[in-house]
Amino acid sequence: MRFDHRHLLGIEPLRPDEITTILDLSDQYVDFNRRRDKHAKALAGLTQINMFFENSTRTQASFELAGKRLGADVMNMSMQASSIKKGETLIDTAMTLNAMHPDLLVVRHPHSGAVDLLAQKVNCAVLNAGDGRHEHPTQALLDALTIRRAKGRLHRLSIAICGDIAHSRVARSNLLLLHKMENRIRLIGPSTLMPAGIDAFGVEVFDDMREGLKDVDVVMMLRLQKERMDGGFIPSEREYYHRYGLDADKLSFAKEDAIVMHPGPMNRGVEIDGTLADDINRSVIQDQVEMGVAVRMAAMDLLARNLRARPTEVVA
Amino acid sequence: MRFDHRHLLGIEPLRPDEITTILDLSDQYVDFNRRRDKHAKALAGLTQINMFFENSTRTQASFELAGKRLGADVMNMSMQASSIKKGETLIDTAMTLNAMHPDLLVVRHPHSGAVDLLAQKVNCAVLNAGDGRHEHPTQALLDALTIRRAKGRLHRLSIAICGDIAHSRVARSNLLLLHKMENRIRLIGPSTLMPAGIDAFGVEVFDDMREGLKDVDVVMMLRLQKERMDGGFIPSEREYYHRYGLDADKLSFAKEDAIVMHPGPMNRGVEIDGTLADDINRSVIQDQVEMGVAVRMAAMDLLARNLRARPTEVVA
Amino acid sequence: MRFDHRHLLGIEPLRPDEITTILDLSDQYVDFNRRRDKHAKALAGLTQINMFFENSTRTQASFELAGKRLGADVMNMSMQASSIKKGETLIDTAMTLNAMHPDLLVVRHPHSGAVDLLAQKVNCAVLNAGDGRHEHPTQALLDALTIRRAKGRLHRLSIAICGDIAHSRVARSNLLLLHKMENRIRLIGPSTLMPAGIDAFGVEVFDDMREGLKDVDVVMMLRLQKERMDGGFIPSEREYYHRYGLDADKLSFAKEDAIVMHPGPMNRGVEIDGTLADDINRSVIQDQVEMGVAVRMAAMDLLARNLRARPTEVVA
Repeated sequence: MRFDHRHLLGIEPLRPDEITTILDLSDQYVDFNRRRDKHAKALAGLTQINMFFENSTRTQASFELAGKRLGADVMNMSMQASSIKKGETLIDTAMTLNAMHPDLLVVRHPHSGAVDLLAQKVNCAVLNAGDGRHEHPTQALLDALTIRRAKGRLHRLSIAICGDIAHSRVARSNLLLLHKMENRIRLIGPSTLMPAGIDAFGVEVFDDMREGLKDVDVVMMLRLQKERMDGGFIPSEREYYHRYGLDADKLSFAKEDAIVMHPGPMNRGVEIDGTLADDINRSVIQDQVEMGVAVRMAAMDLLARNLRARPTEVVA
Repeated sequence: MRFDHRHLLGIEPLRPDEITTILDLSDQYVDFNRRRDKHAKALAGLTQINMFFENSTRTQASFELAGKRLGADVMNMSMQASSIKKGETLIDTAMTLNAMHPDLLVVRHPHSGAVDLLAQKVNCAVLNAGDGRHEHPTQALLDALTIRRAKGRLHRLSIAICGDIAHSRVARSNLLLLHKMENRIRLIGPSTLMPAGIDAFGVEVFDDMREGLKDVDVVMMLRLQKERMDGGFIPSEREYYHRYGLDADKLSFAKEDAIVMHPGPMNRGVEIDGTLADDINRSVIQDQVEMGVAVRMAAMDLLARNLRARPTEVVA
Repeated sequence: MRFDHRHLLGIEPLRPDEITTILDLSDQYVDFNRRRDKHAKALAGLTQINMFFENSTRTQASFELAGKRLGADVMNMSMQASSIKKGETLIDTAMTLNAMHPDLLVVRHPHSGAVDLLAQKVNCAVLNAGDGRHEHPTQALLDALTIRRAKGRLHRLSIAICGDIAHSRVARSNLLLLHKMENRIRLIGPSTLMPAGIDAFGVEVFDDMREGLKDVDVVMMLRLQKERMDGGFIPSEREYYHRYGLDADKLSFAKEDAIVMHPGPMNRGVEIDGTLADDINRSVIQDQVEMGVAVRMAAMDLLARNLRARPTEVVA
């Protein structure tokens, strides 16, 4: 089992065999979480701090459950209500936390790169729970696990990522991961929500759903990130649904056994038809949530093994 | 010991012997909580999630302590700050949580029936911590335990429930429980705060406190639920206290050893005289809080036993 | 080992040997927290409740980690969002909590004396986490530990406390502690931020930083407590920094090996120069945070030993 990283800051630094290592361990945690008795000791004696500078009930809950089930001492810090309001800088906050000797620090931050910066200042393992438009590695890993379990493999699949690509760290991390694992990726969305120069990346770009979904194995819908569209073009929900919302008709262009994914929370009737979202023959949206807890357990378990293998640093 | 339910959604589905089962186990937990060392393993390995769609510091604290003392992994989710703001439906929220494999889900919701609906969508045991004007079963159970311990029995007592009956799930659950246990129930309050047709239920209705309190064993005061009186009649606090607030004079009409109850938080000088509330010879208001933790431990313990006796369902 | 108190409400009631007892045990917890495996059982079976009537992310986090690492069942209650909004009094809140049988109650409150009042109403051990302008004993203890470790002793040192003395419970608790341990204390700040009659207390008062810092061993900066300056004089930040902000030039008047302290969160460029705050040869600001967790573990451990030595009281 090889995973030689100190932090999980993004998909970019991971090798394909490391991704496979995480997913293999995650499979074991999926089974573990389905048991009635689901409390283990992998993180016993360790301190996990969840620092969310941006609200995210479901991602925070997933990390919190993952840590508690593995026996860590888990503490949530709502950083919106915190010292940053009193004028403290991100680095001061990081240094303060570091002095409390956490072992695992889970961080979400609205600015791209903020989590990497913070990781340079602390002695513990840092997990990126989403930073600006940059990366959201555990989301890409849970999506990969969901695909691998549904399709039996994670390579040579044709996968469409649909919607607001430009504002999405989910899209970016997924793109990196699926590309490393040698899949064929299609991006579908209005050109205004497509990052410039993205087609040079080896992906195919479409602005028509029916055309883009043709014969794909996986349809990955995204959330409309209205909160991140500062000043730019905001489509009407009705118009957006008509052109880019997934419904049975558009899905009929994909392979017959194509699966439907969404990172949640869903806007039913905007990004996706509600009936389709609930169709357990096509939709794996609930599986994604289930895989999320397992992937976070696996990632923290692997990082903790690396921590324990290193001598403890003394804080300066 | 018989308690064959999967959920605790209300008092309505419970048989008298099941109520007795819960109260008997609660008595043991009262003693347990008075010990210095009060951490047990009844819920070890299980995950408890508290989902409060309505703020309630004390009820949430009671459930949280109950779960932690029984060894569960406990997670609070403040659903006011959550995905529901991002447009997610209650059912989506429930399905998402369910995919994280909780074993016990404690839910408070402002809409009557919301907790029942949610319970139909999940694989775990659901405890209703209050839904709209419908039910608040653990409150009725803790009130019953308090009465039983103070009076030595829980049947053939004369019990007055006083105040804002119409808006109170506490009154409704208490009424159901005390009726099942064969007590004589009197409802006292202004006719504007009395539900229509309630006198057909086998209770006596009064709009005069002195008359209604005559010879009762138990005086159960309610909170003025101003937050639920949308558009209706709101009495002035001064007028309300004069007519319906409990003071020594009005209490003198009850039996000499009648006990005084209030579910808290109290509005002193509105629903009840402050001196009376603090009179440990009459008031059992602090006992109610103490019984609350014990009753919630008993309820979760019983539900967990039933969970463990069933094969674990696989999430679809 | 002698520490005969039931509560930790302030520095005032502590004898010098009791302060030494706490600091000696804290030294052990400093080492403990630097280990990878840092979960102990000193508080196992006990319930710790953190009641913060005033926001304080870092102090609450420090107490929460301290309790969790010692194995307590820890519950946070954000009292700003709580029943007090529904009209409940502080005493009612205290009585309610008491009925839930906590063993350790950590309280922060905006009013001086509120924590003492509350301690009289409950059966458990109460730790004051800051009350108004009165006391903040764990802050003074962590500062003392930091000084003792940096200077090798905690007596016959010359220590300057600088800035907004009048509004600071940190200054007050430090003053009490450092005086008990027989240090020479200088207070430096504008006369408008200096409590009346303070010079009668055996301290030297200065309104010029260079003069006041002359040959001191320790420079203890304070936060500008703008939130507590109701109606009074509020200096401009720029003017304040010019006269009272610590920079390399002003520090050059202190001893060559003088250490620099700040309770955090810092206003860089207001109370202290940012470069100086980060200079690990002079600044012990991160050490203070580290000592904070250790001191709180030691204090709760000692109080818990005293609790266990007493018979359990029965709630009335």
